[in-house]
Amino acid sequence: MPQELTFAIPFQSPISPHTERARELHLRWVRDRGLVRSESGMREYLSWDLPQAAARTYPYASPEDLVMLMNWFSLAFLFDDQFDANSSDRADRVAEVARELITIPFRPGGTPPDVECPITLAWSEVWSQLSDGMTESWCNRFAGSWGRFLAAHTSEVRISASGTVLDFDEYLALRRRTVGIHHSIDAAERSRRFEVPVVVQAHELMRDMRVAAADTIACMNDIHSLEREERRGDPHNLVTVIRKHLGTSRGEAIDAAVKLTNQYLERYLELESRVPQMCENLGLDASERCAVERGVEGIRHWIRGNYDWALETGRYAAEKSGPAAEAESRGQGGVDDLLLPRSGVGPARRQHQTV
Amino acid sequence: MPQELTFAIPFQSPISPHTERARELHLRWVRDRGLVRSESGMREYLSWDLPQAAARTYPYASPEDLVMLMNWFSLAFLFDDQFDANSSDRADRVAEVARELITIPFRPGGTPPDVECPITLAWSEVWSQLSDGMTESWCNRFAGSWGRFLAAHTSEVRISASGTVLDFDEYLALRRRTVGIHHSIDAAERSRRFEVPVVVQAHELMRDMRVAAADTIACMNDIHSLEREERRGDPHNLVTVIRKHLGTSRGEAIDAAVKLTNQYLERYLELESRVPQMCENLGLDASERCAVERGVEGIRHWIRGNYDWALETGRYAAEKSGPAAEAESRGQGGVDDLLLPRSGVGPARRQHQTV
Repeated sequence: MPQELTFAIPFQSPISPHTERARELHLRWVRDRGLVRSESGMREYLSWDLPQAAARTYPYASPEDLVMLMNWFSLAFLFDDQFDANSSDRADRVAEVARELITIPFRPGGTPPDVECPITLAWSEVWSQLSDGMTESWCNRFAGSWGRFLAAHTSEVRISASGTVLDFDEYLALRRRTVGIHHSIDAAERSRRFEVPVVVQAHELMRDMRVAAADTIACMNDIHSLEREERRGDPHNLVTVIRKHLGTSRGEAIDAAVKLTNQYLERYLELESRVPQMCENLGLDASERCAVERGVEGIRHWIRGNYDWALETGRYAAEKSGPAAEAESRGQGGVDDLLLPRSGVGPARRQHQTV
Repeated sequence: MPQELTFAIPFQSPISPHTERARELHLRWVRDRGLVRSESGMREYLSWDLPQAAARTYPYASPEDLVMLMNWFSLAFLFDDQFDANSSDRADRVAEVARELITIPFRPGGTPPDVECPITLAWSEVWSQLSDGMTESWCNRFAGSWGRFLAAHTSEVRISASGTVLDFDEYLALRRRTVGIHHSIDAAERSRRFEVPVVVQAHELMRDMRVAAADTIACMNDIHSLEREERRGDPHNLVTVIRKHLGTSRGEAIDAAVKLTNQYLERYLELESRVPQMCENLGLDASERCAVERGVEGIRHWIRGNYDWALETGRYAAEKSGPAAEAESRGQGGVDDLLLPRSGVGPARRQHQTV
């Protein structure tokens, strides 16, 4: 049931006209880069349909940029799945790779990764394209959003590995950081090659809108992914936390989660309605207002596009069988190991750039 | 001779009235935190007089903040000295610690470090205070400046370890990043608890001023630290690079380096003269203009304060003897090892915050 649960989102979001061609190029890339290697891994990966997620959340990206954004999604989702709840060594390696992923945006473009594995090689390549043409302000903002997300992800993995049980408030505070929406919204600017004026990005209203959007998407995602997370025995899901916290049935916990989601969505919409007044107060000119509108559209595309994709993706399917489902039931997320160096992928030996 | 070389900087910079008391508290802190442990290490550390450097570059910090800024200087300078030109294992550990230092600003305040050693424990503590009360925009900017600096530092260490020789242009490009002035200027805002308007920080003129200041300080520093770097056999010094590049004598190379420094300083001054016009064009109000003036003062304090300190510090002394000088002549920078966990320092066992 949870994956089919619908929400009344009062706006639509288009899908890129370049989806099919970009998907084809993207699937070649994930194979080439060793991100999906086994046959069962590819079957599982195809069922997720991440290309659809990218095409819905970044509908106005150029064909070339859409492939790049799909590539980025693949490494981010696959990294997220590398955590094995049964091994604390694995948590240390996840943390080490996360620190490398955080560091990559601070190196000059084209510098090979220092901690080498398929995930870091892929991010190093994608970051060069994702940062192309963007200002240092944007790069700082993106790298900050990305860094806070990855640090939170490591924290979540360690909490799982240690068996610590979070209470309701602790879980919400962590979830707000692990959902990874801030950098996803930042990337919307790159997808259309514009930037929201710095004075707007620094404005309290914009910050609150981003947080409300993150909370909305986090809750929806927890509801839609409930069955997958139950299968994995992952306690970090809003419904599971509510069940424990309030001692309710699963159904009642789902109802409470839906209610909370709708509250966050209403909060987002209320904040969004104040944007024209903010533009007025800041004395923005026509082109700046246009950039703000596109920035707001970027948030909407994420709320709606992610929702449309979540209803369809095989990632969150209730019924699943085969190697991926078996790996999930062992507490593992992914089928292929992407955190160890792989012979035959990337540079034969790490090369150091001179400057 | 190089350390005594004077420059005509057409502005002065004050020194904090809280220097002596802050120095005392700071010296207790570096001992407590295990940043300086041996007697010879302390003798060397005292001779550098880093407290003076902090008191000159952040003259308006509160007494408490001045101690914090001195503490920050100590860990940054001592980390810089942990590189041992004779060991590539050491380069890997420097890189690992640098990634941790980059990651710390992205964790919630008070989170203990993941890679534990005196340097990371110290930075984790200092960052909580340094970021206190600052906006997320400032934190992103600081973390970006800091991250690019540390990534460049790792790159420099690896270049040294591999024996690669840089040409003149490659060296200047690297030096601009390793000098670490951007985050130092960012910290000036924290030292007076204000922020330069985001629209000014993102402005081309401000960016160019920061780069010109970084180039000026990098060149002055290379001249003033020449004797120390010659003693260490460190080829990454402007004078040494010019000697090789132009095939000149040491004296001629110093003259050329001085000329270049003066050109950068002139460029900075020329850019600075355009600030009032920028404020006019941006339509800033009185309080925003005041913040911009303080931002410019922050850059000036760094150019002048660092210069005043460099003329006096024992760090760059031409004549030196004892364990520190012997370590330097072995290619080592510091006397104490600060990259390994130290029993008895910090938490007995790493604790993980729940959120």
